[in-house]
Amino acid sequence: MDIAAVNSLSYEQFVEVFGNAVEKCPLVAAAVWSSRPFTSIADIDDAFGHFIDSLPDSGKEGVLRCHPDLAGRDLQSGTLTADSLAEQSQAGLTQLGVAEAERIAVLNSQYKLRFGFPFVICARMNDKTSILQQLSQRLANDHAHELTHAIGEVKRICSLRLQALVCPTHLGPAQPNHVPPRL
Amino acid sequence: MDIAAVNSLSYEQFVEVFGNAVEKCPLVAAAVWSSRPFTSIADIDDAFGHFIDSLPDSGKEGVLRCHPDLAGRDLQSGTLTADSLAEQSQAGLTQLGVAEAERIAVLNSQYKLRFGFPFVICARMNDKTSILQQLSQRLANDHAHELTHAIGEVKRICSLRLQALVCPTHLGPAQPNHVPPRL
Repeated sequence: MDIAAVNSLSYEQFVEVFGNAVEKCPLVAAAVWSSRPFTSIADIDDAFGHFIDSLPDSGKEGVLRCHPDLAGRDLQSGTLTADSLAEQSQAGLTQLGVAEAERIAVLNSQYKLRFGFPFVICARMNDKTSILQQLSQRLANDHAHELTHAIGEVKRICSLRLQALVCPTHLGPAQPNHVPPRL
Repeated sequence: MDIAAVNSLSYEQFVEVFGNAVEKCPLVAAAVWSSRPFTSIADIDDAFGHFIDSLPDSGKEGVLRCHPDLAGRDLQSGTLTADSLAEQSQAGLTQLGVAEAERIAVLNSQYKLRFGFPFVICARMNDKTSILQQLSQRLANDHAHELTHAIGEVKRICSLRLQALVCPTHLGPAQPNHVPPRL
């Protein structure tokens, strides 16, 4: 799909294609449609980012709360979105040892209790070791700092999903800790 | 469920219960959880309303774009949410004659072309005659006026859904054009 094809989509089609660019938040894609026509993927990506930035803090927290726990209940019960399953799988979270799984579960609980939203990280840019490390580190952040950081991760996830949707052949298998160049 | 029970819900539980209070926009319920504890259903209702009001116009348009067409494709294909199906059914939209169905389809198309979002109306407070009448009338509005009007309808739908969720025994079968008292 090229940018002309994206610009020709009705809002129904746009939400169907990009509705999960921000996990379980089709409202964001539906809002971004207002910004068309787009000049590039980067322009679409900017529109998603600007809309998220325009939300009050409660809305940013709401975006985070629509995300599943990493290596959590949805993964175990098979109810992850296809996007999340692919991302968590690539980061090695579908093949954790018992001790690793318990460690993540304990830290996830502590994190949610502290911040009131789940730990969100761009799994495609990390592996299970760096995820565990950052989960421990970010637990020490204050609320405002962590909200900003977590929303940054939402935008990273969104960027990669957009890139995969608009030019799938350009997106090779992402490497842990490798940041793909912005278009 | 009483207000103490609502206040004791985790964000996951809150989104599970109230996630469709605004059609297909779990982000809104997820954001509203930040406003707990609530003192009453009216207080929850206010929190939903205030959050919607806090969105930029593109976000309000996004909320509307997450709604299905009235008597549209989702109704015909059986893919409406349970909430929408019950509401459209009560308004008589599941039993339209051929001419009525065609008339609504034509007006829905004109409306979407003009405003870039679907026609939204609180079906529980209307019947098919008043819906057709308002669809024709609202087509003549300017964009800003219509956006405000449509968001008002989203809030009415949300109020009734909240009321049904929190005290289901208090909500009798709604009557067309009958506005239930606010709690």
